[in-house]
Amino acid sequence: MVEDAEQQLIARYFRPLARHPGALGLADDAAVLTPPEGCDLVLKADAIIAGVHFFPDDPADAVGRKALRVNLSDLAAKGAKPIGFLLSVALPTGAADAWLPAFTEGLGADAEHYGCPLLGGDTDTTPGPITVSIAAVGTVPRGGMVRRSGAQPGDAVLVSGTIGDAALGLGLRRDPQWAGRCGLEPRQRDHLLARYLVPEPRLALGEPLRLHASAAMDISDGLVGDLAKLCRASAVSAEIDVERVPLSDAAKILVGADPIASERALTGGDDYEILCTIAPGKLDAFRAAALRAGVPVTAIGRIVSGRAAPQFRDRHGRALAFETASFSHF
Amino acid sequence: MVEDAEQQLIARYFRPLARHPGALGLADDAAVLTPPEGCDLVLKADAIIAGVHFFPDDPADAVGRKALRVNLSDLAAKGAKPIGFLLSVALPTGAADAWLPAFTEGLGADAEHYGCPLLGGDTDTTPGPITVSIAAVGTVPRGGMVRRSGAQPGDAVLVSGTIGDAALGLGLRRDPQWAGRCGLEPRQRDHLLARYLVPEPRLALGEPLRLHASAAMDISDGLVGDLAKLCRASAVSAEIDVERVPLSDAAKILVGADPIASERALTGGDDYEILCTIAPGKLDAFRAAALRAGVPVTAIGRIVSGRAAPQFRDRHGRALAFETASFSHF
Repeated sequence: MVEDAEQQLIARYFRPLARHPGALGLADDAAVLTPPEGCDLVLKADAIIAGVHFFPDDPADAVGRKALRVNLSDLAAKGAKPIGFLLSVALPTGAADAWLPAFTEGLGADAEHYGCPLLGGDTDTTPGPITVSIAAVGTVPRGGMVRRSGAQPGDAVLVSGTIGDAALGLGLRRDPQWAGRCGLEPRQRDHLLARYLVPEPRLALGEPLRLHASAAMDISDGLVGDLAKLCRASAVSAEIDVERVPLSDAAKILVGADPIASERALTGGDDYEILCTIAPGKLDAFRAAALRAGVPVTAIGRIVSGRAAPQFRDRHGRALAFETASFSHF
Repeated sequence: MVEDAEQQLIARYFRPLARHPGALGLADDAAVLTPPEGCDLVLKADAIIAGVHFFPDDPADAVGRKALRVNLSDLAAKGAKPIGFLLSVALPTGAADAWLPAFTEGLGADAEHYGCPLLGGDTDTTPGPITVSIAAVGTVPRGGMVRRSGAQPGDAVLVSGTIGDAALGLGLRRDPQWAGRCGLEPRQRDHLLARYLVPEPRLALGEPLRLHASAAMDISDGLVGDLAKLCRASAVSAEIDVERVPLSDAAKILVGADPIASERALTGGDDYEILCTIAPGKLDAFRAAALRAGVPVTAIGRIVSGRAAPQFRDRHGRALAFETASFSHF
């Protein structure tokens, strides 16, 4: 019996990624998972679209990595360990054989690296842009998922890594001359571009968050807007010292050279760092656990009572106003 | 604190569908599920795209129903009971407020009817067509998922409902004059059009399949091609009596009037009926259970040994040859 073109494509490009036994080699209608005893499942779906979330000329392997990583980032923020993922990919007619080899190579390398194999999915043609929808599944010990809603007045507000690199990298993609005007060295420019192209999901921080955080989320739509979401879910407010927000060396140069860069760094999306709140009594333990996990974390402010929008204060104690608080698709 | 446009849209249109407690009112990064004791999870992702899987002018509520139902159909074929679903929807800029009210009304009505609430997801803009990706989650008792791979020589081959209506309905959408040329009455034409527009997931057949079927799948890419997939997964072949393939009255008229209709009915996609194999000793029990479930089932042939493509024989015992055995996107 001859397989049709769609089945051949699945066999060639996707079956090698389907290493979970429950994927049944992608030769069935659905995947099957036996949930680990005593665990809850954490489920997240997020799509990326050419021309919206990535540039149509981005390398296909980077698109594969990004599509998985933006979902893994949410699992990390919830304290979850990945189990596997489902994939729906829609490709323009004729694009499959040119695009899928590198896409599945990047996706497969990350699936292997992060222990998150392909469970199933579907492949379609589209008259529109490349669209990659992933639904990721993870586990936490029963009742252990870290919520957005647990922040308490007095908790410290922390972020992982550095903030704003991806938004500044996107700015450099759109305006390649910006680097030169601001005196950015090529390796600094490349650092920011890479941070936009392929984020780093902070899965190593999952367990420290689960053990110590009162609330957490990943920063996908910008620190300012995402902190507002966390505060709204927790019915609290926050005060942030902008001076303490960690910036990369490259970001510091842009922020020093161009007034627009600071707001971009604070409100722009695609960081995929972790934003969390930690009760004062747990702060030392969290910092120690994050250090062991190899993930830098920085306290940037504190949770306060009230329902006002979080305040971002400069070195003079003045509250900043932002033109666009958060990335919104609508 | 003011919510941004994306959050307002989620609150207005999607939060009412997120009735599962683990959806956390769509106010967190991810959903959380406590798996039922002693169960496996069955996971399926399938997307539908305007201009590919539905017509851009199809009613939005029908698109919402179809997007969920094509996934529920897979859960049904695997013997699974739905728990909930994740949704990624991509909309052209400016389309949200015109399209989402009816879309979420149809989707929400089906989510309620089939006991499959929204768990989470994301909403994006796209420069391309409306794209709705759903990942559905169901449960079966541990080890109970019905596979494609269990068919044995001697098993009866059965299908639910009637075959080919959706493919013929699609033909009528593309060529509205076809109905008149073949002498189809308006209500018969409407029956076929409706079968294409909104399929019926056979969830009521889930338990009978789980208790009695050696193999099953849903028929989404046409009976001929999907039976070939089932046979390939089971390392068997099959002999089908085309005369026994159940057709609706409307399909019979088209098949009688136009030679092309028969092949379309057997090879065209979108039936979302169940194809299954039942060992002879379980056939009576399966028929009785299907009757109790209110789902008509018809034996159309039997599984035979060998690896040849399944044979479809006409009333004279001649094997039919098909121009296109199965719907393929590539």
